[in-house]
Amino acid sequence: MTPIQPRTLGTCYYPEHWDRSIWEDDAQRMVEAGLSWVRIGEFAWSRIEPRESEFHWDWLDDAIEILGRAGLKVVLGTPTATPPKWVLNKYPDMLAIDAQGQPRKFGSRRHYCFSHLPYRAEAGRITRDLAERYGSNNFIHAWQTDNEYGCHDTVVSYSDAARSGFQNWLAARYGDITALNKAWGNVFWSMEYDDFSEIDLPNLTVTEPGHIHQLDFMRYSSDMVVAFNKVQTDILRGHTDAPLIHNYMGRIVEFDHFGVGADLDIASWDSYPIGFLSDRLEASDAHKQHFLRQGDPDFQAFHHDLYRAVGRGRMWIMEQQPGPVNWAPYNPAPLDGMARLWAWEAFAHGAETVCYFRWRQAPFAQEQMHAGLLHPDSTDAPALSEARQVANEIKAMPDPKTAKGDVAIIFDYASAWAWFAQPQGADFDYFRLVFDMYRALRRAGQNVDILPPDAPSLDGYSAVFAPGLMTIPDGLRKILQSTETPIILGPRTDTKDINLTIPTPMGPNVEGLDVTVRITESIPPTAKFDLKGGGTARHWFEHITGDAETYIETIDNQPVLVGSSGLFYLGAWLDEAGFDRVIQMFVTPHKMPAGVRVRDTDTHRFWFNYNPHSVTIDGNEIPTAGVIWQKL
Amino acid sequence: MTPIQPRTLGTCYYPEHWDRSIWEDDAQRMVEAGLSWVRIGEFAWSRIEPRESEFHWDWLDDAIEILGRAGLKVVLGTPTATPPKWVLNKYPDMLAIDAQGQPRKFGSRRHYCFSHLPYRAEAGRITRDLAERYGSNNFIHAWQTDNEYGCHDTVVSYSDAARSGFQNWLAARYGDITALNKAWGNVFWSMEYDDFSEIDLPNLTVTEPGHIHQLDFMRYSSDMVVAFNKVQTDILRGHTDAPLIHNYMGRIVEFDHFGVGADLDIASWDSYPIGFLSDRLEASDAHKQHFLRQGDPDFQAFHHDLYRAVGRGRMWIMEQQPGPVNWAPYNPAPLDGMARLWAWEAFAHGAETVCYFRWRQAPFAQEQMHAGLLHPDSTDAPALSEARQVANEIKAMPDPKTAKGDVAIIFDYASAWAWFAQPQGADFDYFRLVFDMYRALRRAGQNVDILPPDAPSLDGYSAVFAPGLMTIPDGLRKILQSTETPIILGPRTDTKDINLTIPTPMGPNVEGLDVTVRITESIPPTAKFDLKGGGTARHWFEHITGDAETYIETIDNQPVLVGSSGLFYLGAWLDEAGFDRVIQMFVTPHKMPAGVRVRDTDTHRFWFNYNPHSVTIDGNEIPTAGVIWQKL
Amino acid sequence: MTPIQPRTLGTCYYPEHWDRSIWEDDAQRMVEAGLSWVRIGEFAWSRIEPRESEFHWDWLDDAIEILGRAGLKVVLGTPTATPPKWVLNKYPDMLAIDAQGQPRKFGSRRHYCFSHLPYRAEAGRITRDLAERYGSNNFIHAWQTDNEYGCHDTVVSYSDAARSGFQNWLAARYGDITALNKAWGNVFWSMEYDDFSEIDLPNLTVTEPGHIHQLDFMRYSSDMVVAFNKVQTDILRGHTDAPLIHNYMGRIVEFDHFGVGADLDIASWDSYPIGFLSDRLEASDAHKQHFLRQGDPDFQAFHHDLYRAVGRGRMWIMEQQPGPVNWAPYNPAPLDGMARLWAWEAFAHGAETVCYFRWRQAPFAQEQMHAGLLHPDSTDAPALSEARQVANEIKAMPDPKTAKGDVAIIFDYASAWAWFAQPQGADFDYFRLVFDMYRALRRAGQNVDILPPDAPSLDGYSAVFAPGLMTIPDGLRKILQSTETPIILGPRTDTKDINLTIPTPMGPNVEGLDVTVRITESIPPTAKFDLKGGGTARHWFEHITGDAETYIETIDNQPVLVGSSGLFYLGAWLDEAGFDRVIQMFVTPHKMPAGVRVRDTDTHRFWFNYNPHSVTIDGNEIPTAGVIWQKL
Ligand SMILES: [Zn+2]
Ligand SMILES: [Zn+2]
Ligand SMILES: [Zn+2]
Repeated sequence: MTPIQPRTLGTCYYPEHWDRSIWEDDAQRMVEAGLSWVRIGEFAWSRIEPRESEFHWDWLDDAIEILGRAGLKVVLGTPTATPPKWVLNKYPDMLAIDAQGQPRKFGSRRHYCFSHLPYRAEAGRITRDLAERYGSNNFIHAWQTDNEYGCHDTVVSYSDAARSGFQNWLAARYGDITALNKAWGNVFWSMEYDDFSEIDLPNLTVTEPGHIHQLDFMRYSSDMVVAFNKVQTDILRGHTDAPLIHNYMGRIVEFDHFGVGADLDIASWDSYPIGFLSDRLEASDAHKQHFLRQGDPDFQAFHHDLYRAVGRGRMWIMEQQPGPVNWAPYNPAPLDGMARLWAWEAFAHGAETVCYFRWRQAPFAQEQMHAGLLHPDSTDAPALSEARQVANEIKAMPDPKTAKGDVAIIFDYASAWAWFAQPQGADFDYFRLVFDMYRALRRAGQNVDILPPDAPSLDGYSAVFAPGLMTIPDGLRKILQSTETPIILGPRTDTKDINLTIPTPMGPNVEGLDVTVRITESIPPTAKFDLKGGGTARHWFEHITGDAETYIETIDNQPVLVGSSGLFYLGAWLDEAGFDRVIQMFVTPHKMPAGVRVRDTDTHRFWFNYNPHSVTIDGNEIPTAGVIWQKL
Repeated sequence: MTPIQPRTLGTCYYPEHWDRSIWEDDAQRMVEAGLSWVRIGEFAWSRIEPRESEFHWDWLDDAIEILGRAGLKVVLGTPTATPPKWVLNKYPDMLAIDAQGQPRKFGSRRHYCFSHLPYRAEAGRITRDLAERYGSNNFIHAWQTDNEYGCHDTVVSYSDAARSGFQNWLAARYGDITALNKAWGNVFWSMEYDDFSEIDLPNLTVTEPGHIHQLDFMRYSSDMVVAFNKVQTDILRGHTDAPLIHNYMGRIVEFDHFGVGADLDIASWDSYPIGFLSDRLEASDAHKQHFLRQGDPDFQAFHHDLYRAVGRGRMWIMEQQPGPVNWAPYNPAPLDGMARLWAWEAFAHGAETVCYFRWRQAPFAQEQMHAGLLHPDSTDAPALSEARQVANEIKAMPDPKTAKGDVAIIFDYASAWAWFAQPQGADFDYFRLVFDMYRALRRAGQNVDILPPDAPSLDGYSAVFAPGLMTIPDGLRKILQSTETPIILGPRTDTKDINLTIPTPMGPNVEGLDVTVRITESIPPTAKFDLKGGGTARHWFEHITGDAETYIETIDNQPVLVGSSGLFYLGAWLDEAGFDRVIQMFVTPHKMPAGVRVRDTDTHRFWFNYNPHSVTIDGNEIPTAGVIWQKL
Repeated sequence: MTPIQPRTLGTCYYPEHWDRSIWEDDAQRMVEAGLSWVRIGEFAWSRIEPRESEFHWDWLDDAIEILGRAGLKVVLGTPTATPPKWVLNKYPDMLAIDAQGQPRKFGSRRHYCFSHLPYRAEAGRITRDLAERYGSNNFIHAWQTDNEYGCHDTVVSYSDAARSGFQNWLAARYGDITALNKAWGNVFWSMEYDDFSEIDLPNLTVTEPGHIHQLDFMRYSSDMVVAFNKVQTDILRGHTDAPLIHNYMGRIVEFDHFGVGADLDIASWDSYPIGFLSDRLEASDAHKQHFLRQGDPDFQAFHHDLYRAVGRGRMWIMEQQPGPVNWAPYNPAPLDGMARLWAWEAFAHGAETVCYFRWRQAPFAQEQMHAGLLHPDSTDAPALSEARQVANEIKAMPDPKTAKGDVAIIFDYASAWAWFAQPQGADFDYFRLVFDMYRALRRAGQNVDILPPDAPSLDGYSAVFAPGLMTIPDGLRKILQSTETPIILGPRTDTKDINLTIPTPMGPNVEGLDVTVRITESIPPTAKFDLKGGGTARHWFEHITGDAETYIETIDNQPVLVGSSGLFYLGAWLDEAGFDRVIQMFVTPHKMPAGVRVRDTDTHRFWFNYNPHSVTIDGNEIPTAGVIWQKL
């Protein structure tokens, strides 16, 4: 495996948007700004192959040549997220179908169903054409597959292709229909099937479908994404040694990123802190107001840590927000300094490369109000000078090696699906729970590692947290017995088996921890159960029985955090004060002003000020939107 | 008619969920807990007849035998709420169609359209098969038809079967199309038809359909439920003398429960106080917070009184919530004591039998998070000991005979449909209005009878209320002339004729009460019109003219409650203080702490404390979630 | 062109709803009440032609004769908004299709797709039949085409007819597909087409469709309305010299009213102040509460001014709310006096005629709860005596000539569509922006003219405002260079070209005004950027660069209002205080109590008190809901 590379910057460029006459100048300006990488091609299918088998390679040859000769390393994207109209004409049933049974039409992007095998083959075919032409091109230093899998809610499709694919997948998983009926508990409402071909997709049922019906369909849908991607990586591996990358999005949990990541070399993601604050974060109005032009101080960090795990240590930002975007409900501009801060936050979390999206704002089409490093009239946008500053700064600090985390959290996509299939409370969500705990760790100044549920070891951490991990895999269960690291399970951890069924004995069933949860309450946002000593339980509350010692309890003496022999179980979703108390049983928090975050690499400690005002820490002032660092 | 039976307890049991080896032990434990009844079979079609005409009776024979021999009386359910997949394969068009035109698919329950005649016949056929086998079985002491008609919004279907059924129904009702055009006022927007076959269902119209079009479709849809049920009761009557029961739900008004009830012997309902507080009750956040783990203090009482009327005196709880459920937006656990309190509240309102749903929580399928009397691992859930306590208590007080109410409210399903068809204000709802008045009566400590609109007499009450009764039936109109009971009509009562048309003279047209309403205001939630002397008008306000004396008026001197010769008209929807004032004109309220409710039987007065804290009343302490009683 | 006519009153009448025996009496009562006009026929197709080619003219002949002989002038409506069922039977595909792909069914009104050419022809055919029979009838003094184009969201349809019509329209607009691909920027996501026949309608796309795809579809849809109406006006012109009118609605912006108006003689509109306050106005709860029974004090005025422009000086109220309506979320009754106030407000803004909707409240069908001048039982409703009072008052003041406005606002339907296609913020809307500025002008007591974007001159005003005018037409751009009137552009004005593309140089590009906007922020409702000197920026904030002088800036020194040589640019959406400050740079406000509005004609100044309490102004008391006037 290629080792982690020195810190670099880049940008996303669309030569097909601009007159060929300015490509050279654009390339020069990129280089002058200190950028090393340029990503191209991922939406250009209609210009590469405007009609079936009619290829226009010349412009792309030239673009790569011009960019490469200027000194830029090219990331070439497979254009499979935007099949041209002729592909749809060829396969009219390739569109995904929404939950209401309507086709999701042509006219934007990601208009394909992952279960549609002929389109999957067509995507492989264009990948092969690209790979054959450019696989050994010296200017191409990495490949990107497709673009933002899952964006715009595109993992799940209720198409005919999905239904028959799902039936085959179930047949393979369960072998015979009796096994499925038993695993699904279909006796419950006479839902038993005689044959796999009778099984429909779990949409539009009279009341909720079986939770395992739902969960298996999400497992299947995730597998389709992995398989779609693997077609491309298998082809690319045959033609290139350059690393393969996909650009994930923020808070997309509908497919297993670890699964896709296993076939890639680097995990990258598209980081839009202000857009994400607006459109995918539970927070109070006051919080969203305070961080309006900075983005949430933990959301990016979480994804850096998550994707560093998905990339087995190698992580990029493939698209970094440079200014206002167009796609969130509201789209404020970043404060001056944020385009630099976000880049350094990524580097501090181990990013090798940060590419700003995009070089020049296109004046047309859907994203014309989405900023770039240049304005549409080619003048410098504010982020360009910040990028230039970062480019200079990394010259002195090229080494991205992150410290091993002080603590770790286990993140499990299958649990996200299980919570979705069986939320038990209207606003419950696995990501939200894990992220609430992650935030508490960040408030305490901890370096966090995010681990997959099949992590080979939990050793070397002050504590490892596994909130909401509905089913504990066998490997992990064994590790829990051997590690000396304090492990904090719950709420809801290990309460279901692989078929989303309650086991007997009832969980959690972790040796050494005498805890059983037989009664679970989901409670509305207005309700809370106060804790002795501060903090409160919210959303989710479990009635804990067993011999484990109680560390935190409610004012009514109901246990909330219990433990024995280094294994702990937290039976509730807590508020900030409550989570802070749990954390502080295991780690000593850094003292920091609100809105400031800290992150260490092997060599440096970085302080980030997400506030819209300056702060002082240890006598050092950090300006508004500022970042400072010191050698460790 | 069989007289009202002594108080008993029971539970719902699914032998098909459990290994046969534990049935005997389960039966023993039920008996030991003091339970007398066990309901079985209502979802077991796929185990009775897994493929067409292939019957597996043995397990059901055994289950009945085991339960019966243990000393339990069995209620056997017809399994028609969950037709197996092969039935759907046989009749692919049997699914209901939603208002958007989509079939409501297989994979949960109630996946049939009431208008689909072949399925109705198939449901009759399986009923006959069960009746022939078990009609004279000595262990079967009652039958239940289907399960929870109308649950999951299943009364109304926009299927082809519904459309042609509706056309025939209209032809039968109106005779010729000219009569329909006139009754519907179709001249209004050139909506006149030439033939009944031209009439479509009232969904997806450009703007609202004709209100009477809507209302007639709801009348038709209700008739389909009555007819569906009657197929089964006609068959069962031929094979058994055991009483026939259906288990209604809470706040389902889409079909006429009196109509279905006319073909049954006992009305039962499924009482989920905490689920219903969460998912079907208008109340402030503070109210929902206060009663979070107890349920609303009046919602159950209302349905007890309603279904006692539907059952002509005979009422059961077929399913009683024992712990957290799974299906409401939020699902807290009941306070200790509530499983007892709810049972006694039911008994005090005349219930013969209270069956806890369910014996053992199934670890699989949709309701795996729905509590039972046993946990999935067969340990006792908290409600089991409360059931045991109730079982002991009723030994001393077996007689369920309820006192005749102090006051009565008329409840009319057709008015609910008329309000739905013509709400005139965005959040208006007939149930909500009636229930607001019912709550005021309960706050005043009154025993309430709920009467159908064709009640033969209104005598013997301190007052009878008929809020929102859009059209007064002829029989009732006559009774209003002869009774000496004070009658309080309005708001909106008697303002429309049977075709939802404004009559001339304009209503109300009750002899002896000179009141006319020509102007009606619907007002937003933020607005209110204050009353002289306290209270305020909200939601609905009528401009009253006529010679009747004014008893309550607004601060602007607009009459709100008027009356003459024992007939009163209330021209507004009031707040709590306002309704309390109206009530107190006719009855003397009991003094009680907030959250306490009282109910009398012929022999006892019961006090229920719905508060999450103890209270003192007349020197007696009632603990949290407690119930006490005294001999009258 | 016929000059503006003296002030008159009228009503809407449906002889087909009532027994012929009362028509004569109704006509007498109308005349006695002082009404001059009666509109009939617009929903009566099923009575005129109940089956294809079977005409029943007699009743309509009689009705016209009776009304005319009584002294009333008749407005005859073409009945094309309510085609009878047989028309739908003839053209089953004439229904509009909603955005979800469902047909919008028969059973109410406006159930046709504007793109359906056979129905358009059928509508022309019935228009011709009416025109031939009544074109020279002396009692008919005006014609109305159809009814309330666009009501119930009926401009846009996703039908097959619309798709092929759109394809043809695009082919005509762009000539060849390459031009369209370029104009739409289809290269962006490989959305390029090979042929116009490949272009689908912009619904149900995976994520948002191209903004210009959306905008062109709205342009097309608007053109269909214009074309539909023109079929009728062309026919009518051949048979009558009476003026042609359409009755527009409030806040419908989906089609170009100026375009429809160009083929008509008079613009009328249907004014429902209380309904509109409830269902189509952004305002605080407190505002809606204060004006609950009076309606918003500016909404009607805005539409009077707008439609006076659409009618090139000739404006009517074809339907004036007389009491509670039925169709808004909440439907309070007007305060006594409002039916008079609204009429005088219309007259003061130049209305020739105000027709109350409707003569008698029909007791049946959808609008049975919608008041009239008579109650359903033929007794006088409150508005009748107010109409009588107005009828007497106008005898002394017949002249409706309005003063030229003090100031003007440009209103551009195409900008409304462009904002809809590209809002950039979740709750942004062109009408809302323009109306916010209009309100500020009204608060300052200004007489406002609303101008189309192709107004031939901007001279003679204290100031002209052009907020949100996304693209400046060539003619207007020239006028900006020559007028001496101060012009206030922005926010967003002149920032896009005709293809909704950002131009280079970036806008605004108005000679003499050195301003460029390169960065735009959309900000959530909770956020605001305060201004030095008072007021705040909300919703929308632009980063202004250039040499123009700054007049208003934020507390962070960012320019908000800049200008040079009489041209100004406002770079933000402001709150009330902020807009007031901008206005007061150009005009001297009248001092008036809150809730009072003023409007001048050539001869008089009118004061309207919209408050639910009396006020004193210049020593004169204006009672609640009162209007007073004085000679200028
Ligand atoms: Zn992106
Ligand atoms: Zn149930
Ligand atoms: Zn109208």
